Amino acid sequence: MIRHLTISAGRSLGCVSKLNVISNHLRQQPVQLLRQVSNTTERSPLENMASSVKHLGQEEAQNIDQELFNDYQFSVDQLMELAGLSCAVAIARCYPHDKLKKSDSKVLICAGPGNNGGDGLVCARHLKLFGYKPSIFYPKRPSKPLFQGLVTQCTSMDIPFISELPSSENVNNSYGIVVDALFGFSFKGDVRAPFGDVLNTLKGLNIPLCSIDVPSGWNVEQGNPDGLQPDFLISLTAPKKCAKLFKGKYHYLGGRFVPQSLAEKYQLNLPEYPGTECIVSLM
Amino acid sequence: MIRHLTISAGRSLGCVSKLNVISNHLRQQPVQLLRQVSNTTERSPLENMASSVKHLGQEEAQNIDQELFNDYQFSVDQLMELAGLSCAVAIARCYPHDKLKKSDSKVLICAGPGNNGGDGLVCARHLKLFGYKPSIFYPKRPSKPLFQGLVTQCTSMDIPFISELPSSENVNNSYGIVVDALFGFSFKGDVRAPFGDVLNTLKGLNIPLCSIDVPSGWNVEQGNPDGLQPDFLISLTAPKKCAKLFKGKYHYLGGRFVPQSLAEKYQLNLPEYPGTECIVSLM
Repeated sequence: MIRHLTISAGRSLGCVSKLNVISNHLRQQPVQLLRQVSNTTERSPLENMASSVKHLGQEEAQNIDQELFNDYQFSVDQLMELAGLSCAVAIARCYPHDKLKKSDSKVLICAGPGNNGGDGLVCARHLKLFGYKPSIFYPKRPSKPLFQGLVTQCTSMDIPFISELPSSENVNNSYGIVVDALFGFSFKGDVRAPFGDVLNTLKGLNIPLCSIDVPSGWNVEQGNPDGLQPDFLISLTAPKKCAKLFKGKYHYLGGRFVPQSLAEKYQLNLPEYPGTECIVSLM
Repeated sequence: MIRHLTISAGRSLGCVSKLNVISNHLRQQPVQLLRQVSNTTERSPLENMASSVKHLGQEEAQNIDQELFNDYQFSVDQLMELAGLSCAVAIARCYPHDKLKKSDSKVLICAGPGNNGGDGLVCARHLKLFGYKPSIFYPKRPSKPLFQGLVTQCTSMDIPFISELPSSENVNNSYGIVVDALFGFSFKGDVRAPFGDVLNTLKGLNIPLCSIDVPSGWNVEQGNPDGLQPDFLISLTAPKKCAKLFKGKYHYLGGRFVPQSLAEKYQLNLPEYPGTECIVSLM
């Protein structure tokens, strides 16, 4: 039942009101505004905010997760739904459906055997509702009812499951975006078959790769300089320590369900989500 | 396990692209734009859209609900989370937190014994994350783990439960908004104690009353001319037949999880949700 979480706190930050102004602009023009921000010599409120966010170690992420389920009595279904929704919203924000070439609205979701894969399945379902054309590669499927339900929901919403991952070249030619939902914050040790081959295929892509929570194959704390280098990362809960090594274009924080008391206990110091949004930019 | 649903379809409407333009404006200025729209003599795309939406009878709403759970394998947790989130987002859209007097951000949620009450508890939790100060009156609590979990989540997020409902006058003086989450589309027959007194109290309010799915005490198809007259209604799934008799200021459709195949089967003909939004105005 290990899962991740996120947080709506960050009220202790002194830069919250300026941040809100920036965040509201970001709703319209995320890329352009970030470039304006990063061109200033002085550190902007947004940069200050991002640098003060806590980056979680693996054990701490697991402890927070346990506390959400045991003490706060959230169900996995609830939090996975909010997490996966936030992933889909952030992807739609960065790669807007109506600005993509028609063929580019085809999205390939690569889902792993654990909760990170579950987030990917939820994300696929919401992307479909947003007008994208997702397909799912899900080679190892757990037998728990939660995951079986997620598969049925996708299947019955006409989201195809593909049984073999095409070559990098064919993925590049057939899809507009790939979502990496293979491994999350519980990942440790070696990559087992068939995921070594999957990671090699993802490394050969030249289309945008979007990682959920942790770029797959990265050590959760140390990263992996020879591993995937995604364009997009959505951190769930707080960013993990490895997110400091992320060099892609977009970094979002997603989900919005963490009690303030839990945020304070772990001193997560996360930015405030703007308005009723379920995502906030961390770049 | 009777529940409600909503729909992202409406693709068969000829007015979708104009509607999207209007919907995008609505994100900023819902009331003003609606007034502009309703001042034109010609029927606007939005009015055409709203009039073409299917209004569900009670049995049909129950059948759709069953199909979502049995055939599409959604869990109640998942759909209740999305439904309650959409209620909170719509309330925040109509009664923005930062435009209310400080005391008016106090929201009283009156929750009934069924799934409508569960939606109210989820709504309360998200309102808290959005910066409101919710309190909950929940006189009859089911013993199912889902509802117990929802109560624990609220309690541990410092949302107080009040054991007695104050008089109408005291509610008017103490809160800015009241959410009616007492009865949903399964309601039939007479109101049992203590809910008769609760409805009488709600009838005496002069602050905004927000009903979830069905104004409580209304016949789901025939309405109730002597009953509650809420300012705000959020329909979940499609609007129920009684929503045609709603005379308040704001009517939203909420949740966004219905497979297009189900929408087509029941010819729901609902409007397209704008972008990644989880609500759409039906006024």
